[in-house]
Amino acid sequence: MTSVLGKDPRCSIARSLEVLGEKWTLLVVREAFRGRTRFSEFADALGIARDVLSSRLATLVEFGVLERRAYRAEGSRERAEYVLTASGRELVPVLAALNAWGDAYRATEWGPATVYADAQTGEPVSLRFVTESGRILDLDEVTAHPGPAFRNT
Amino acid sequence: MTSVLGKDPRCSIARSLEVLGEKWTLLVVREAFRGRTRFSEFADALGIARDVLSSRLATLVEFGVLERRAYRAEGSRERAEYVLTASGRELVPVLAALNAWGDAYRATEWGPATVYADAQTGEPVSLRFVTESGRILDLDEVTAHPGPAFRNT
Repeated sequence: MTSVLGKDPRCSIARSLEVLGEKWTLLVVREAFRGRTRFSEFADALGIARDVLSSRLATLVEFGVLERRAYRAEGSRERAEYVLTASGRELVPVLAALNAWGDAYRATEWGPATVYADAQTGEPVSLRFVTESGRILDLDEVTAHPGPAFRNT
Repeated sequence: MTSVLGKDPRCSIARSLEVLGEKWTLLVVREAFRGRTRFSEFADALGIARDVLSSRLATLVEFGVLERRAYRAEGSRERAEYVLTASGRELVPVLAALNAWGDAYRATEWGPATVYADAQTGEPVSLRFVTESGRILDLDEVTAHPGPAFRNT
């Protein structure tokens, strides 16, 4: 286990960023969602230095975002493939939030790059804060406050 | 402007990560949401090397996440303070998504660190995908597909 960033192991944001917060890591995850599984596919898609990619894949495997599996195509030597785990697949909201912020605040003339949609109907969806009773709130209606981890000290 | 990570400037995730994707950057943003404004406050809260903090603050100012303002307490020399801009304040969903993932997949015995709630009623809220007509979907009901930026090439 790496040391926790920012002095406070109680913070879940810091613990997430320990795994995900290095340069390139979330782009490796994005490529995994696009179906890349092989080292060479990640390298080609990202144009990332091979030692950096090795390090990022190792971290993602260590923390259970990707699973490393042996893979052998007929007649060739064994290779590794990297596949999103259940916890990795739950990173969609992180990518979607970054995508929405980039669309809004670092927009380009090309328009939105990725669109999230209802798989059944194709209707566009966006990330919103929703109460347990199903009320949808605007961002300025939401506050963050310390949870149990900070109250019990 | 920095070069775009990952070879593809059309991707909004990559453009967001150009600004936010270095180690420590999102923790600096988290501290700004907690009301830190001064260099020394960020440094003390995070335990981050001063040269790294300088670099991260400069990037966040360059890309309009933080605004650098002159500030002079009575009888002391002028200092800088760093305040979230409108685009910086729209990063709440990015932090909330990282927080939720950390709570779920890197949980600790302390319990949730940060709770997002309806500012009016205190009711807990969570990030969900919602259609334009207000239907709330589960993660496995959502797909990502290429938007205009990738279709028009």
